[in-house]
Amino acid sequence: MSMEQLNHLLHKEIPLCEFMQMKLTALTDTSIAAVAPLTPNRNMHQTGFAGSLYALAVATGWAMAHHRQAYFDLDGLLVVKDAHMHYKRPVTGDIELKAEISDDATAINLKKQLEETGRTTLPLEIWIYSKGKKCALLEADYMVVPE
Amino acid sequence: MSMEQLNHLLHKEIPLCEFMQMKLTALTDTSIAAVAPLTPNRNMHQTGFAGSLYALAVATGWAMAHHRQAYFDLDGLLVVKDAHMHYKRPVTGDIELKAEISDDATAINLKKQLEETGRTTLPLEIWIYSKGKKCALLEADYMVVPE
Repeated sequence: MSMEQLNHLLHKEIPLCEFMQMKLTALTDTSIAAVAPLTPNRNMHQTGFAGSLYALAVATGWAMAHHRQAYFDLDGLLVVKDAHMHYKRPVTGDIELKAEISDDATAINLKKQLEETGRTTLPLEIWIYSKGKKCALLEADYMVVPE
Repeated sequence: MSMEQLNHLLHKEIPLCEFMQMKLTALTDTSIAAVAPLTPNRNMHQTGFAGSLYALAVATGWAMAHHRQAYFDLDGLLVVKDAHMHYKRPVTGDIELKAEISDDATAINLKKQLEETGRTTLPLEIWIYSKGKKCALLEADYMVVPE
């Protein structure tokens, strides 16, 4: 699935992604980037709302994992199981998100996990930036499970 | 601040809360409850979007902590520092959220923390229900820090 197709899917199927004006801006087999403006994602302090930052990050991670799942031709439903969010500094401007997939997430490893346990885990770190500074980090475990 | 005032504040100052149609439905000095419909908070599987569930939970916890902060007359800015989300089962209907404040969060403990360290932590567990079942849990550390 191309970046344009993923953007279309996120906006059409997840109302919150459309409202947050989230947009994927780069996609390779191992990395992804996205942006969103501050205005729909602000709180009462005119900084990024903690809930928006997480929602943008978990959707960015989902798009990366979905792309990887398709690339490796892994059957199953992609879900997020556990996620840990660390807020480091306030987001005072527009929001940028970046994620890279772990080197462990090779096709062989993932298919082996799927065969042995019926499910496989894709751990991802999604960084949230604003004005060039690291503001928050989401560590999320995505899983491919039987449909 | 009353429940009505908190609902008004959340909708006016956090665009995402208005879009998610989040509504506080109960508030005491130690507990809070909120609801939101599935439709604006769905994903492509017609279940609750992971990002919406977190955003609803973190806003519910913020409202509880804000109420507690005012009740104890604690000066400072209320922020969330770290949060851990556990997804247990899909949300297949409208969303309910419930949180209670820990017994440790007494006025004496919190004021002592503030005096000794300049900040104080309010740990909260926010449960997410749908159709009467526990579907997810957010463990979040809110902090009151110098403005």
